[in-house]
Amino acid sequence: MTAVPASMTDGRALVDRAMRASAERLDPMTRRVVSYHLGWTDEQGRPAAAGGKALRPALALLSARAAGLPYETALPGAVAVEFVHAFSLLHDDIMDGDRTRRHRPAAWTVFGPSAAILGGDALLALSEELLLDEHTRGAHWAARALAAATQRLISGQALDLGFEQRDDVTLDECLTMAADKTGALLACACSIGAMLGEGPTRLVTALTGFGAELGLAFQLVDDLLGIWGSPDTTGKPVLADLRARKKTLPVVFALAAGTAESERLAELYALPGPQPEDVLREMARLVEAAGGREWAAAEADRRIASAEKRLADSGMDDHVRAEFRDIALFVTSRDH
Amino acid sequence: MTAVPASMTDGRALVDRAMRASAERLDPMTRRVVSYHLGWTDEQGRPAAAGGKALRPALALLSARAAGLPYETALPGAVAVEFVHAFSLLHDDIMDGDRTRRHRPAAWTVFGPSAAILGGDALLALSEELLLDEHTRGAHWAARALAAATQRLISGQALDLGFEQRDDVTLDECLTMAADKTGALLACACSIGAMLGEGPTRLVTALTGFGAELGLAFQLVDDLLGIWGSPDTTGKPVLADLRARKKTLPVVFALAAGTAESERLAELYALPGPQPEDVLREMARLVEAAGGREWAAAEADRRIASAEKRLADSGMDDHVRAEFRDIALFVTSRDH
Repeated sequence: MTAVPASMTDGRALVDRAMRASAERLDPMTRRVVSYHLGWTDEQGRPAAAGGKALRPALALLSARAAGLPYETALPGAVAVEFVHAFSLLHDDIMDGDRTRRHRPAAWTVFGPSAAILGGDALLALSEELLLDEHTRGAHWAARALAAATQRLISGQALDLGFEQRDDVTLDECLTMAADKTGALLACACSIGAMLGEGPTRLVTALTGFGAELGLAFQLVDDLLGIWGSPDTTGKPVLADLRARKKTLPVVFALAAGTAESERLAELYALPGPQPEDVLREMARLVEAAGGREWAAAEADRRIASAEKRLADSGMDDHVRAEFRDIALFVTSRDH
Repeated sequence: MTAVPASMTDGRALVDRAMRASAERLDPMTRRVVSYHLGWTDEQGRPAAAGGKALRPALALLSARAAGLPYETALPGAVAVEFVHAFSLLHDDIMDGDRTRRHRPAAWTVFGPSAAILGGDALLALSEELLLDEHTRGAHWAARALAAATQRLISGQALDLGFEQRDDVTLDECLTMAADKTGALLACACSIGAMLGEGPTRLVTALTGFGAELGLAFQLVDDLLGIWGSPDTTGKPVLADLRARKKTLPVVFALAAGTAESERLAELYALPGPQPEDVLREMARLVEAAGGREWAAAEADRRIASAEKRLADSGMDDHVRAEFRDIALFVTSRDH
């Protein structure tokens, strides 16, 4: 289950070239920040190879094929969703005070917060411009969907920031936050190629539903890795989410479970300031004992099943459907 | 010359209503920041009336009339350009460390940098969404132009931030910066209504040219006020631009003039840390003695003349042309 699906590597070079060509439109300062953030260069601007897994572009390309169109139809969409994703990470790292991203210093720690804010801004504006370069109804559709997804992404981040000040976050709120922050852009990625190619609305709706469910599954797995994943896998320090007292899905489930462990966890989460690693390990144990780990894993599986169901009656080619399924299983497997 | 032109107040209530209705789409956290930043509420969220002069929406509405269309055609454009302007001020205040905006504490000092970053992001995404809500070729045209203008605005801010680290900024670079940072969005504001209404390309080009020249004139006057304006007028502390050692147009002209005063000014500009008011007053005297004040005032007049010329052969109704002219003279007069 951990082998990288072919559909995640097939269009990789194509997208990479298009992203680099698009980034040429940025002014030198934001281009430097963006090139570093995307893993193309190191701190000194020398070539590097430290990119992410480019999940969203792969899904975007596949969504063109779901509509019976060549990969290339989705290319501006693949670049645009990845740029919006990069924008959100650039800004989130500043807001969350996260100093590490993909095993490297976060961009704002290298270039300063101002340059990182501006780099994110530039990517957001550029993503819309790239889509609107084409004068088709599909481009209009895709650009509008991307702007709406970006709105929800921002809304999810606002909710998440608000959670930090509260000790009464419900599981429903937490699911809404994840659906906005992670689900909306993945839903857009999964359908943007079909929109650009002006595919049938029924197909676009099915793909959007698939992506929304996949997004929740992805977030659940990400939250599990944020507690029990190794730094090698996550690219972040060990127990990072508990260190930052993040109200992630397994934690909020555990807090709301009404067990003795829930109460003890709430006490530890209320402690001020940084905590030593043994307290963090105790938190992790309590989340598990209160059922948060098991629930999150089972919920992720349910979301994957639900995602697959959305594709079942979309009228899509079986081969493409299998490729979507492979990507979904790959990015939500817990052993890589 | 200081009476507010009717065309700046005519559509004001219309735009205000549309802006407030559009802001309802924001999540509660970013809406709170945006409402404060736009002057609708105070720090506690109570109603207030502290808005700006809404120059860009007025120009946007007028640009629909230039194409022989009713004001309403331009409404989403009027809101979108003002939201992009608000986005840029929200983020610029953080980057520049400016603590005061329109006589009030800047939003980031009230809500924190994270909320202000997110508020700006939300406005940027929303501005594109508002334009793309309409499924017309004009909406596509306007959304693309706004994304491109936003790119240039960001590019101008990046240049401006870079200037802070340099002592060899040329007047040409400074003019490029102003054209990007101020001119591009004003050019878009002056033409977006004509684009939304699918007016003739020749008219849109003329309006864009008018706005670009007006933008430079506006920036020159703003730079003059940043040195010689009263805090009552600017809403900022006295001598704010010199205090922050900003490389504004009159300053860069003076530094490059090759006079004895230029050299002395360069020495003062190189002094580290905050400087007492008598040093700031000496800086202002040197900028004037080296010709920076006179040049900037004359250059603003030349830009206004050039702006008017762009409208002369645009085929626009004389009455509308006079209204554009009145706005241009009003916002570049130095006595308000």
